[in-house]
Amino acid sequence: MNAEIVAVGSELLLGQIVNTNARFISSQLSELGINVYYHTVVGDNAARLKEVIQIAESRSDLLIFSGGLGPTKDDLTKETIAKHLNVDLVEDEEAMKSIEDFFAKQNRIMTDNNRKQALVLKGSQVLTNKNGMAPGMIYDVHNKIYMLLPGPPKEIEPMFQFEAKPKLAERLHEDNKIVSHVLRFYGIGEAELEVRIQDLLDEQSNPTIAPLASDGEVTLRITAKAENEEQAWLLINKTKNEIIERVGDYLYGEDDDSLSSKAAEMLIANNLTISAAESLTAGLFQSELAANPGISQSLLGGMVTYTEQVKQEQLGMPKEILENYGVVSAECAGEMARLVKGKFSTDIGVGLTGAAGPEAHGDQPAGTVWIGIAIDQDPPLTYKLQLTGMRNTNRLRAVKFAFHYLIHLLAEKGYVKK
Amino acid sequence: MNAEIVAVGSELLLGQIVNTNARFISSQLSELGINVYYHTVVGDNAARLKEVIQIAESRSDLLIFSGGLGPTKDDLTKETIAKHLNVDLVEDEEAMKSIEDFFAKQNRIMTDNNRKQALVLKGSQVLTNKNGMAPGMIYDVHNKIYMLLPGPPKEIEPMFQFEAKPKLAERLHEDNKIVSHVLRFYGIGEAELEVRIQDLLDEQSNPTIAPLASDGEVTLRITAKAENEEQAWLLINKTKNEIIERVGDYLYGEDDDSLSSKAAEMLIANNLTISAAESLTAGLFQSELAANPGISQSLLGGMVTYTEQVKQEQLGMPKEILENYGVVSAECAGEMARLVKGKFSTDIGVGLTGAAGPEAHGDQPAGTVWIGIAIDQDPPLTYKLQLTGMRNTNRLRAVKFAFHYLIHLLAEKGYVKK
Repeated sequence: MNAEIVAVGSELLLGQIVNTNARFISSQLSELGINVYYHTVVGDNAARLKEVIQIAESRSDLLIFSGGLGPTKDDLTKETIAKHLNVDLVEDEEAMKSIEDFFAKQNRIMTDNNRKQALVLKGSQVLTNKNGMAPGMIYDVHNKIYMLLPGPPKEIEPMFQFEAKPKLAERLHEDNKIVSHVLRFYGIGEAELEVRIQDLLDEQSNPTIAPLASDGEVTLRITAKAENEEQAWLLINKTKNEIIERVGDYLYGEDDDSLSSKAAEMLIANNLTISAAESLTAGLFQSELAANPGISQSLLGGMVTYTEQVKQEQLGMPKEILENYGVVSAECAGEMARLVKGKFSTDIGVGLTGAAGPEAHGDQPAGTVWIGIAIDQDPPLTYKLQLTGMRNTNRLRAVKFAFHYLIHLLAEKGYVKK
Repeated sequence: MNAEIVAVGSELLLGQIVNTNARFISSQLSELGINVYYHTVVGDNAARLKEVIQIAESRSDLLIFSGGLGPTKDDLTKETIAKHLNVDLVEDEEAMKSIEDFFAKQNRIMTDNNRKQALVLKGSQVLTNKNGMAPGMIYDVHNKIYMLLPGPPKEIEPMFQFEAKPKLAERLHEDNKIVSHVLRFYGIGEAELEVRIQDLLDEQSNPTIAPLASDGEVTLRITAKAENEEQAWLLINKTKNEIIERVGDYLYGEDDDSLSSKAAEMLIANNLTISAAESLTAGLFQSELAANPGISQSLLGGMVTYTEQVKQEQLGMPKEILENYGVVSAECAGEMARLVKGKFSTDIGVGLTGAAGPEAHGDQPAGTVWIGIAIDQDPPLTYKLQLTGMRNTNRLRAVKFAFHYLIHLLAEKGYVKK
């Protein structure tokens, strides 16, 4: 089966947004062993969309449409496909109900154009939208599969992964099972990582190894093809172990892990409590940690100490440290960690200070960051970063490095990983 | 003139990378007033690429290709187009020289396959690559323009902007200036906003009005076509004023504004200081505010009070409020705002508490959020949200609503907008 992904939306053609849906669905389809031969983007225009559908039908078996299912006049994907295939649109009760619930919950009046979102192709498999109003659908006709999905990434991604993907998997032959496994690294550059596993990359065939760098992280996607899942995993694990031998020090997680989720897992699993005092990151470290459900047993709270006065008055930072070493210093970061740990009576205290940019902070150039971690009764450990990004890239990198160092430190101290 | 952007590269179809080039070039073309009707992505396959070229020729005047100009066997864009148009490939001296220099600089031996990169379509305008080796080119034939550009963003973006764009501009008549202006709304749904301006949407022609919803925000892009920029702005402002009459209450910014940047502008412009106490958002409000350079004169700091104990011990929350009203309540949010304002001696205090989810908080369903804002000596104002998203969507929405209410409150109190 070969697929084509058709994104519908003038905002894509105006360059207002980037087509991340095509990327997400392509990577999901490759895991199923479905070849994607084309991506197409067309605007909110019925005539041009119809031509795009006809071209896609002439060259692809699976047509996946994203966008154009919303309530407005612009949204015409469903209507155009229905007309083209000569199928009626009928109201889906369940979808209608969830749309009404959505407005009820928000105490908003539902305008009539929202009813349009509950219409589906008659005879199609309806895909529930857990994060929005417009349902998706799968329609089979003339040996073609038409899949209609909503445009917003936070709606289409879970809908595809949990509703559409299993239904597609059912239609595929069991032989030729494809399994992918992602290894996540931090603290090592893509080039250096590739050099260390160059021979594995050179001789790769099955499984394949695909490196990808983003947001300061490097991932390796190992993809194996085999008769069944067990066989595929045997191949994956053999390669995985060879990779870990070379660069295991930088491996922090797998698949959907994030640095913050791994840190949260370790904190919760070991019943450790944590607090943080943040300057340049201004709460981002604590917010990222709080992104993980169940964290409230570990993250008690913390402070944003943006100014020197607040550091002294609220956190109790000794004036001497600021005068002798400055606010962007190992001494300040370590003391922030120690003070917040004591103030909130937690097992761990983290301090983040630095010059996010664009301006330098005194004689400290933009991108200079100090991270302090206080744990048990040990003197705080401090780590220096010299980042080269823009203000908010630097702030995010600082937080990621803080999680990176925290995970390593906890592992060194013998705390279990999960 | 209408354009189609064809990206060539299997890595796009495997979902390894996202097609940011199409977005970049689309936004650049819209500035020139060139309509982009299609994006296409095809793999490193000569037969499929040839078909894509033929389809593009049948529907577009300007064909822009990105990728496939490199040294490897996979790179076959140039070769396929040359063969299709029956044009020879000839070595470009300048390009050849810069490739040799590139290797000399890096003390690397140039492998023969790199010479391939210096080949260009005979008779084409060559575009210099200042950030890589493969030159770009523009070839005119049969009233079609074929533009070949390299794939890496850091090569294609400057090449398009500084080499290709001016050459395209020369070919366009001046009497066709296009100007776009984005209006940003918060606190109103896309459907409701459209109902309020339905007549304007129905009768739109020049300027056009394109609604777009994302992350709880709704934007209207007004695009006018006129003889010159002044004329275009006259058209835009007329429509803009009509829109503001209907839904101006929800308008918070324009073009590249964000809720946090507008709030930061107002705080800085009015020399107001602010602090926050955050529960479910755990520092996200302060972190988003700190994303804006120069905010340190207004954002002094604040607290993350994740647990009830921390609310009492660190913030001074009266036990009675937690016992009588619960932590997810107007009383708690208002008191958090009042207490942090006093503790940090700021003009404004903001309190955020709620049940982010997935679990409910006692009898408060997931998505229930209370925002408190204390300003001057007034009793704190409180706002309730009933959000329906997933945990972290709810946390982000809560922060956006906090900025939304803060901006409105400051405006009501007569503080200047900028």
